[in-house]
Amino acid sequence: MKKQINWLFDYPNLQVYQYAEGFKFSLDSILLAEFAKIKKSDEKIIDLCTGNAVIPIILNFKFHKKIIGVELQKEIFDLAKDSVSINHMEKEINLLNENVLNLENYFPGNNFDVVLSNPPYFKYHHENFINKNLTKSLARHEITINLESLIKIASYLLKSKGRFYLVHIPSRIDEIIVFAKKYNFGIKEIQFVHSKIEESPIIVLITLIKDGKFGTKVKPPISILNLNTYQGLFE
Amino acid sequence: MKKQINWLFDYPNLQVYQYAEGFKFSLDSILLAEFAKIKKSDEKIIDLCTGNAVIPIILNFKFHKKIIGVELQKEIFDLAKDSVSINHMEKEINLLNENVLNLENYFPGNNFDVVLSNPPYFKYHHENFINKNLTKSLARHEITINLESLIKIASYLLKSKGRFYLVHIPSRIDEIIVFAKKYNFGIKEIQFVHSKIEESPIIVLITLIKDGKFGTKVKPPISILNLNTYQGLFE
Repeated sequence: MKKQINWLFDYPNLQVYQYAEGFKFSLDSILLAEFAKIKKSDEKIIDLCTGNAVIPIILNFKFHKKIIGVELQKEIFDLAKDSVSINHMEKEINLLNENVLNLENYFPGNNFDVVLSNPPYFKYHHENFINKNLTKSLARHEITINLESLIKIASYLLKSKGRFYLVHIPSRIDEIIVFAKKYNFGIKEIQFVHSKIEESPIIVLITLIKDGKFGTKVKPPISILNLNTYQGLFE
Repeated sequence: MKKQINWLFDYPNLQVYQYAEGFKFSLDSILLAEFAKIKKSDEKIIDLCTGNAVIPIILNFKFHKKIIGVELQKEIFDLAKDSVSINHMEKEINLLNENVLNLENYFPGNNFDVVLSNPPYFKYHHENFINKNLTKSLARHEITINLESLIKIASYLLKSKGRFYLVHIPSRIDEIIVFAKKYNFGIKEIQFVHSKIEESPIIVLITLIKDGKFGTKVKPPISILNLNTYQGLFE
């Protein structure tokens, strides 16, 4: 597959690789990187289903923190490696070519300050698995990991009061909240992202706190049409 | 306490009573009455914590359905009776002066097509129970019923696939979804209501379906400032 380099519009010094066909990094990952609050005291940060590592790259650029990125698909993992290299972040971003489900073999529990993820969004049903591009299908559909497993592993990895920043589609909000509670998360913040503000949201950004309590701040809605810096992405 | 009559702006033929001091019917109830979808086949409808019966009055006016309203506080129940009378709906709206927690003594389970509620919004903590007006405190704070008990009784009352239309504050969204799942509801729809659309929402409207599945439609946000018909309420 043909690789291409894309600039990140908000960060003129940063670039990421993607394939001309198939998997592309998405606006959703950039929004999640912007949404996440990284503190000075945060030492251990991990991005699950990192894709071409756009989230670690932005966070390392902004906060100068070492970050781990985990990506199962070898083809996409290779993009991540190249993306990290082109930004000269090899010493800052550690990449792992592995299924997120197996992370218990790599890390002890209660270890991370921050987990992030832009996971596959869609439930897997045999009949709607019609995307002939396998790489893209695995990135979009819950074939190798589902929402409950992802939330469970995030809870395993995080210290008490650690934060899990998640981007997803709004139609899964009920399931996210139910499984978050099941695995001892509180839902600290929810922010919906709209195309036109007067229409239904297209994505949702969520902050989960391990061992957090009930009580959610629903933040002001965002319209991506108002985000001048991202307009290039829609050309 | 001095009673006063208020017109419902969207419904020039309807009026409700409220006290000049203390409990007042709220925009939230009107929004819930507008949000709820009443079908031709719906036969049994009940409004829990009905206040001055503004929800039954609007729904009876729009859909010509018999509706039961339940209100614990005698002072507010009296307002409901007077409000029903002034609209000549005594044969259409049955009022019950009772705690919602006791409804198992009045109705069999799996009986209603639709439950509605604009319940007390705020958790009860002794230290924030500073509202000297007891009537108002009971209407606003979870003193006589809490969210879990309300959702449990709504589930008891409803037939399978029956709908529970609930209005609440956005900060309780996590708890609503967790308890909804616990008592066999699916979250069909969520709609946030904002003052200014670019700010955090102030209330949330929710459709729960008994025995419903995962998968939520987050509807377009509403700004009450765009609802011309309600502007009189803010004068």
